[in-house]
Amino acid sequence: MRIPNHIGIIPDGNRRWAEKKGFEKQDGYEYGLNPGLYFLKLAKEYGIQEVTYYGFTTDNCKRPKKQIESFVKACVDAINLIAKENVSLLVLGNTNSAMFPKELLKYTKRTTIGNGGTKVNFLVNYGWDWDLGNVESACTNRKSILESLHSKDISRIDLILRWGGRKRLSGFLPIQSVYSDIYTIDDMWPDFKAEQFHEAMIWYNHQDVTLGG
Amino acid sequence: MRIPNHIGIIPDGNRRWAEKKGFEKQDGYEYGLNPGLYFLKLAKEYGIQEVTYYGFTTDNCKRPKKQIESFVKACVDAINLIAKENVSLLVLGNTNSAMFPKELLKYTKRTTIGNGGTKVNFLVNYGWDWDLGNVESACTNRKSILESLHSKDISRIDLILRWGGRKRLSGFLPIQSVYSDIYTIDDMWPDFKAEQFHEAMIWYNHQDVTLGG
Repeated sequence: MRIPNHIGIIPDGNRRWAEKKGFEKQDGYEYGLNPGLYFLKLAKEYGIQEVTYYGFTTDNCKRPKKQIESFVKACVDAINLIAKENVSLLVLGNTNSAMFPKELLKYTKRTTIGNGGTKVNFLVNYGWDWDLGNVESACTNRKSILESLHSKDISRIDLILRWGGRKRLSGFLPIQSVYSDIYTIDDMWPDFKAEQFHEAMIWYNHQDVTLGG
Repeated sequence: MRIPNHIGIIPDGNRRWAEKKGFEKQDGYEYGLNPGLYFLKLAKEYGIQEVTYYGFTTDNCKRPKKQIESFVKACVDAINLIAKENVSLLVLGNTNSAMFPKELLKYTKRTTIGNGGTKVNFLVNYGWDWDLGNVESACTNRKSILESLHSKDISRIDLILRWGGRKRLSGFLPIQSVYSDIYTIDDMWPDFKAEQFHEAMIWYNHQDVTLGG
């Protein structure tokens, strides 16, 4: 079976899930923590080498204050859970902003935790425009463009999994995503199940990889 | 009904269609011309303001010579067909390359044809890396990034339609696509039918537009 090296995750649908349960919208985020950890364990079993989580974006910070506080807390808590695993952890986003949680600054350089292993990237206060903000006019080939990104430590993404039914990237790493296969799961992220992962792996195995060729 | 302002088209599957018919791979491209024109007429009926066709890319030029000659000819022929309609036409791609057909140079500045109307952009010898090759380090906000793209005359894309079953962007205008909804049609492009367009419009009408928010 052909396995992706690098999976990107867009864990959407927390608010819709909460509303369906009769909770307030912002109460959905904390139910995304266990799915995130479970996903990582499954990814390790499959031998996936790199996983990137779409935490929150500068775009998301236009939402009501209650929601912002809740998704920022959920990201910090998720990263603290992941930081108990054997991983090589990088938290990436615009740190020149009050929105970036100070307690995560220590992970903004890639950090080997335990025995290391799977690279885990977690986007926090990420913006696609921020990511491109260092590209120089001298960057006229792929290598130089990739190396000038704020996200240069994040490699090309083979497969993007999005929960919550939407079929779009919502600003997720536009350059690393140029050739990614994009797989949407209709269920909301807090309803993550192992079968969804397995089905995505089977689907990916049937895609060809042409890198635009 | 909420109608997209700007639709991007990835007309994939010409080679697979040809093989299924017992033709040689490269013979599929010419069967994509009439679908392209028919699509434009339907788009005008719906009041779509801008349509961008993914012609061929610098990536595609790694294919066998026979195929390259065939898809270049198909693009030239398609553009000549479109240039008989009332459109505002722009052909966009890397003209500093022998791969760019000289007969299309006249359309590399937006050209009003007949009564004008629908903006039609056709990507020819386009590369996402080429597109970003002018971004300056001074471009730290969205407006300045967008204005520094080679494709700055192409606006944000609301809906991307891809024929041929693949669920990926393959380097299609990464910046204009950051918030696009992506709809895949399993049929191959030469099998384009009006129903596919109508179904995509109904699907799009049910999506929310958050622009990442």
